[in-house]
Amino acid sequence: MDQSRTPHLDRVAGPADMRDFDLSELTALADELRQETIETVSRTGGHLGSSLGVVELTVALHAVFRTPFDKLIWDVAHQCYPHKILTGRRHLMHTLRQEGGLSGFTKRSESAFDPFGAAHSSTSISAALGFTIGRDMGQPTGDAIAVIGDGSITAGMAYEALNNAGAEGRRMFVILNDNDMSIAPPVGAMNSYLNRLNAPHASLSEVAQGFMSALPQSLREQALAARARACGGPPDATMFEHLGFTYIGPIDGHSMPDLMATLRMARDRAEGPVLIHVRTVKGKGYAPAEASGCCYHGVSKFDVATGAQAKSKPNAPSYTGVFGRALTDAAARDPNIVAVTAAMPGGTGLDIMQQRFPRRVFDVGIAEQHAVTFAAGMAASGLKPFCAIYSTFLQRGYDQVVHDVALQGLPVRFAIDRAGLVGADGATHAGAFDVGFMTNLPGMVVMAAGDEAELVHMTETAVAYDDGPIALRYPRGNGVGATMPERGQVLEIGKGRIVAEGEHVAFLSFGAHLAEVLLAAEALAARGITCTIADARFAKPLDHALIDQLIRHHAAVVTVEQGAQGGFGAHVLHYLANSGQLQSGAALRCMTLVDRFIEQASPEVMYANAGLSARDIAATALQAMGLEAFPAGKTQPLRA
Amino acid sequence: MDQSRTPHLDRVAGPADMRDFDLSELTALADELRQETIETVSRTGGHLGSSLGVVELTVALHAVFRTPFDKLIWDVAHQCYPHKILTGRRHLMHTLRQEGGLSGFTKRSESAFDPFGAAHSSTSISAALGFTIGRDMGQPTGDAIAVIGDGSITAGMAYEALNNAGAEGRRMFVILNDNDMSIAPPVGAMNSYLNRLNAPHASLSEVAQGFMSALPQSLREQALAARARACGGPPDATMFEHLGFTYIGPIDGHSMPDLMATLRMARDRAEGPVLIHVRTVKGKGYAPAEASGCCYHGVSKFDVATGAQAKSKPNAPSYTGVFGRALTDAAARDPNIVAVTAAMPGGTGLDIMQQRFPRRVFDVGIAEQHAVTFAAGMAASGLKPFCAIYSTFLQRGYDQVVHDVALQGLPVRFAIDRAGLVGADGATHAGAFDVGFMTNLPGMVVMAAGDEAELVHMTETAVAYDDGPIALRYPRGNGVGATMPERGQVLEIGKGRIVAEGEHVAFLSFGAHLAEVLLAAEALAARGITCTIADARFAKPLDHALIDQLIRHHAAVVTVEQGAQGGFGAHVLHYLANSGQLQSGAALRCMTLVDRFIEQASPEVMYANAGLSARDIAATALQAMGLEAFPAGKTQPLRA
Repeated sequence: MDQSRTPHLDRVAGPADMRDFDLSELTALADELRQETIETVSRTGGHLGSSLGVVELTVALHAVFRTPFDKLIWDVAHQCYPHKILTGRRHLMHTLRQEGGLSGFTKRSESAFDPFGAAHSSTSISAALGFTIGRDMGQPTGDAIAVIGDGSITAGMAYEALNNAGAEGRRMFVILNDNDMSIAPPVGAMNSYLNRLNAPHASLSEVAQGFMSALPQSLREQALAARARACGGPPDATMFEHLGFTYIGPIDGHSMPDLMATLRMARDRAEGPVLIHVRTVKGKGYAPAEASGCCYHGVSKFDVATGAQAKSKPNAPSYTGVFGRALTDAAARDPNIVAVTAAMPGGTGLDIMQQRFPRRVFDVGIAEQHAVTFAAGMAASGLKPFCAIYSTFLQRGYDQVVHDVALQGLPVRFAIDRAGLVGADGATHAGAFDVGFMTNLPGMVVMAAGDEAELVHMTETAVAYDDGPIALRYPRGNGVGATMPERGQVLEIGKGRIVAEGEHVAFLSFGAHLAEVLLAAEALAARGITCTIADARFAKPLDHALIDQLIRHHAAVVTVEQGAQGGFGAHVLHYLANSGQLQSGAALRCMTLVDRFIEQASPEVMYANAGLSARDIAATALQAMGLEAFPAGKTQPLRA
Repeated sequence: MDQSRTPHLDRVAGPADMRDFDLSELTALADELRQETIETVSRTGGHLGSSLGVVELTVALHAVFRTPFDKLIWDVAHQCYPHKILTGRRHLMHTLRQEGGLSGFTKRSESAFDPFGAAHSSTSISAALGFTIGRDMGQPTGDAIAVIGDGSITAGMAYEALNNAGAEGRRMFVILNDNDMSIAPPVGAMNSYLNRLNAPHASLSEVAQGFMSALPQSLREQALAARARACGGPPDATMFEHLGFTYIGPIDGHSMPDLMATLRMARDRAEGPVLIHVRTVKGKGYAPAEASGCCYHGVSKFDVATGAQAKSKPNAPSYTGVFGRALTDAAARDPNIVAVTAAMPGGTGLDIMQQRFPRRVFDVGIAEQHAVTFAAGMAASGLKPFCAIYSTFLQRGYDQVVHDVALQGLPVRFAIDRAGLVGADGATHAGAFDVGFMTNLPGMVVMAAGDEAELVHMTETAVAYDDGPIALRYPRGNGVGATMPERGQVLEIGKGRIVAEGEHVAFLSFGAHLAEVLLAAEALAARGITCTIADARFAKPLDHALIDQLIRHHAAVVTVEQGAQGGFGAHVLHYLANSGQLQSGAALRCMTLVDRFIEQASPEVMYANAGLSARDIAATALQAMGLEAFPAGKTQPLRA
C-alpha cells in the first residue's frame, strides 16, 4: 500500500483536528497544504499566487483561533484555497470555480468557516468590526480576524474601517498580508510606506527641514513644537498606531514559529484593536509562480512540472484588447487623451497604451472613487480622460459618477469592461447593474458594443464626444470574429442600426448579446418567421425613430440586453408608454437577466440560467406572437 | 452721505483687486467679509458656521494664489460664502439657495472661480490632482489647491486621493481646515489623531511596550529594529508625511499674518505635494454660532442681534422624526436592534435613539462605504442593523449594498431619508436614483412611505423582516398630518393598498407623492372622472395582483414616483410587458422625474419643474384617456 504523500493533511477533517499539533507537525502540514494547493489549481485553474503566499498563515490562524466560532474573514478571498482545503472542502477542490462547484472566493452559503463572503476588495475590516460589535452585544461569536493584503488596504473603505475600529477600541485583529504585490504591482504612497517598514529608506526629513527653515521664526517655533507631539504615539509610531491600533511586525509570514508565537501572544494579550504586519511572498514555494507574481495571480489549468498554462486558441480578439489598441491608436493622434485604471492595467487593456504612452496612463491603485473624480478633474482641466473600470467595480465609484461627472456634465469617458456575466468569477463579478445605474443619470450617453468592430467605433465616438460624459460597455472574452475596421468611425449619438430586415418579429438588441439574437433569428427563420434585427448601440439617448419604426411594422418587438431589469428595455418601455404607443403597436417583450444572482459557470451556461439563451430569445418571440415555443428544455442553448 | 461700513470690501470686485493690499488692509477686509457673511445668511439662511470659520483663509488664499488661473477647490463647499462674496457674486448673495439664485455650493456654471463644484464631501483632493495633471500636460491652468475639513478627511476617497497624490509627487496644495467639528462632532481615529497634533496627549507607547515585552526575544529584536525605521520619515513625522506630503502646521487659521506667511512660503517653495494644517473655529466671530457649532451648521433666516432662527410651524411631524421615534420604540422592545449613521445622527433622526440607547447607535463618520459593510457584518453576527443614510449619500456605498448585503442576502435595513427632491440644497442632494439602483438588486425589498403613518408601519415591517435586505425610503420635510398609529403594523411584503376606488383612471403611487396624486384625483373628479388610487407600498417585490386588477378595470393606469426613470414604473411596465398585458389593458403612463438635474427651489416648485406637479399628474391621466388637458400652465401646481 502506498504511503500517503499528505499524512498530516489527511488527519485534518477540520481545524479542530490540528489544534494539538506541535510546531513541527504544523510545519509539515503547511508543506503538504502547499503541495495540495498547487496540484488542485493545476487541475482547475484559479488564483494560485495569493493562495501560496498564505499557506503558513492559514495554518497558524486556524491553529491559534477557535474557528468557526472566531470569525476569520479573508479580504477579496483570492487567497482562500488553503483555507478551503483545511475547512472540510478538500474533497470538493476539484470543482473549484466550476458550474455547481466550490466558489473561487469565500461564501457564506458554502461553509460556517466562511463567515463573510468576499470577492471585491477591502471589505474585511468593516465586516470584522461588525462581528466584533455582535460579540460585545452578546451574539454567539468570538473574535473577528480580518486578513487584508497591501494592495487592498489602498482602498478608501479599508481606511474608513481602520479609522472607525481604531476609535471604537475593541478587541479585534487585522492581519496585513504584505507581499508587495497586488494583482498588478501595487501603487501609491501607502505601498511606499509599507516598503519603508521593511527596509532602510531615504529620510524625508531634509525636505521637511527645508520647509521649516523657510518659515518666519515665530511660526517655525510653533510648528516645531506641534511636530514634537505630532506622532501621537511613541516617536517611532506607525500609521496604524496613529489610527488607534496596536501594531506588531513585520513578521516573516513563512516562519511557522514566528507566526505561532505572534498570533498566540496577540490572542492572549489583546484588549483593543491589533494590526499584525506579516510579510509574505506571492507564489511562495512554487518557482514559476514566485518568478511571475503578476501572471500567476489568476491561472488557467497548468502543468505542475513546467508551469506552462493551458491556453485556449481564440479565433477572435478579446474585447479588452480591441479597446486597448483602439484607445492607443487614438492617443497617438490626440495628445490630450489620458487614461485611468484602478489597479487593473492588464485587465482593462490599458497596459497596451501604457507601453506606448506610460506618462498618460494613471494607475491609482484599488481606489475607484478617487479614480472617477480624478478623471473628472482632468476633464475639467481640458484633458480627455478615459476611466476604464470593470462594470462590477464601477459600483464603487457610483456617487462620483453621479456627483462629480454627470452633475457637472464633464466629458469623462467610461470604458466599462466585463459588462454582463463573466464566468468562473461568478455572481460577485457580474456586470449586471451598470446599464440601469448609468442610464438613470441625466446627460449620460450610454453605448454598448454589439461586436468587437462596434467597440472600435464606440471608442472613436467617445474620443470625439466632448459635450458631456459618455460610457461604453463591452463583455469579458473574445469577440465574434467581426471584420475589423482600419480605424473607428464616429457614430451619430443616439442612433441605432438595422442589422437585418424581416417581416414578423423585431429584435432590438443592446450590446454583445447581438450574437445570440442572430442565432435566435436563424432558428425562427427555420419556422418561417422572419426577423428584423436592430442594434440600438445607445441605451441613452434612445433612438426614438428606430423604436417607432420597429413597433409600427412588426407583430412583436423584443428588447435584449446583458443586464438586470431597469436598464435598456425599461427605458424603451417608458418611452413607448409616455408616447402612447403601447396599445397601438406590436406585442412587447423585455429580455434582461432574470432577477436573481447567477452562480458561476461558463458565460453561456450562466446566460442560459439567466433566461437569456438564444433559445429563450426565440421562445420569447414566439410567445409574444401567440405561437407555440420550441419543444426542448428552456435552459439548453441553441448552439449546443 | 453715510460712510460705507465695508470700505475695503467695496474695493474688491474680484480677487485681483486685493492682491496689493497690505496685511492690515487684508485683516480689515476679512473683518468686513465676516460681517457681510453674517448679514447675508441672516437674510437667506444657509451654512453659516463653516463659512465664518474660513473668512481669513479665504482672503489669504485669494491674495496669495492667482485665482481663477490657479484652481481653488472647496471640499463640500458649505464654507464657500465668503469666497462667493469675494469673487464677483456679492450682489447676488441675497439669492443664495433660492429659486434661480446662487447655489449654496460652488458650481462650475456659476463662476470661473468655481473650477470644480461640490456638495458631497471629500472629492476635492481627487479633483485637485486631476487639475495638477492637466497643468503638467500643458493645459492652461495653474496650481490646484484643495481645502478640506477634518470631518471630510475621514472619508475613504480623501485617503485614496492622498495616497495617489503623495505617490505622484507633483506640486499641489491641500489645506486641512481643522475645526474639530463636522456637521456633528467628528468621530474616528483620524479625528483623535488630529487633536493630538494640537494638544498634549497620553502616550500610546505603554500599550505598545507591553505588547513588545510579551514577544519572544528574537522576535522582539526583529520587531524593534523594524520599528526604528517605521515612521519612514523623521522621528516625529505625521501621517501625511508617511503618505508623501510635506506637512506644515498647525497654523492659526484666524491670524492673517500667519496665514499669509505660510501660504506665500508654500507657494514659493513647494515642489511636491504640500499639506497645510490650519486650525479654525467653526462660527468664528459670531457668538451664537461659535457657541453652537452644530446647530449653526445650516441655519434658517435669523436675527443678527439675538441669533434666534426663524422657525416654520409644522402642522405635521417630520418624516425624519417619525422614523427616529418609531425605531427607538422598536429598539426598546428588541435589544438586537442597532443603528449606523455616517456623520448624520441628527439628520437621520438617529439622535433620538442615541439619547435613549447611546451604545447601540454607531456614528462611523463620513464613511458610507464602511457604514454599509459594517452593518452587514453586524447582521451576519445576528444583530438587526438599521443603516440610515440619505438617498444621495447611499450612492457612495452602492457597491457595498450590492456585494456585501444583497449578494449575501443579509438582513440589513436601509432607512433612506431625503428621497426625492430636497429643496434649497438643490440637484447635488436630490435623492433621485435610489429606487432604480435598489430595485435592480435581486432579493432586495424596497418600500416607500405614502405618508408618515405608513413610515411607522414600514419601520415596524423592517424590524420584523429578517429574510434578507430591506429598504424604506421617505422624503425630507414634514408629513401630511396623517393619523398616527400607536404602534406600527407589520405589512405583508409585496402587498399594496387601495386608498380610493373609482371608475375611470387608476393611479398607482409609490411613496410620498401620494399627496399630489390625491390632489390630482380631486381635480379630475371635478371633471367627472373618478379615480382609483393605489399605494404600491413596495417597488420590490411588486404587487402583481394589484397591478392586474388596476389594468383590467380602468381605461388608464398612471404610475407616480419621486425618482428618476428606471425605477418603480419601469418595473411595472416590465412586468406588464412580459406577462402580455400591455396591449389588452388600459392606457399606461409612467410618471417619474424628468430626465435632467433639477435646480434648487422649494420642493414643490422643483417637482413642478420636474413635471410632477398635481396638475401634471391630472393632465397626464387626461391625456392617457384621450381627453383635453387643463388649460393653465403646466408648471403651476394645483394647490397654488
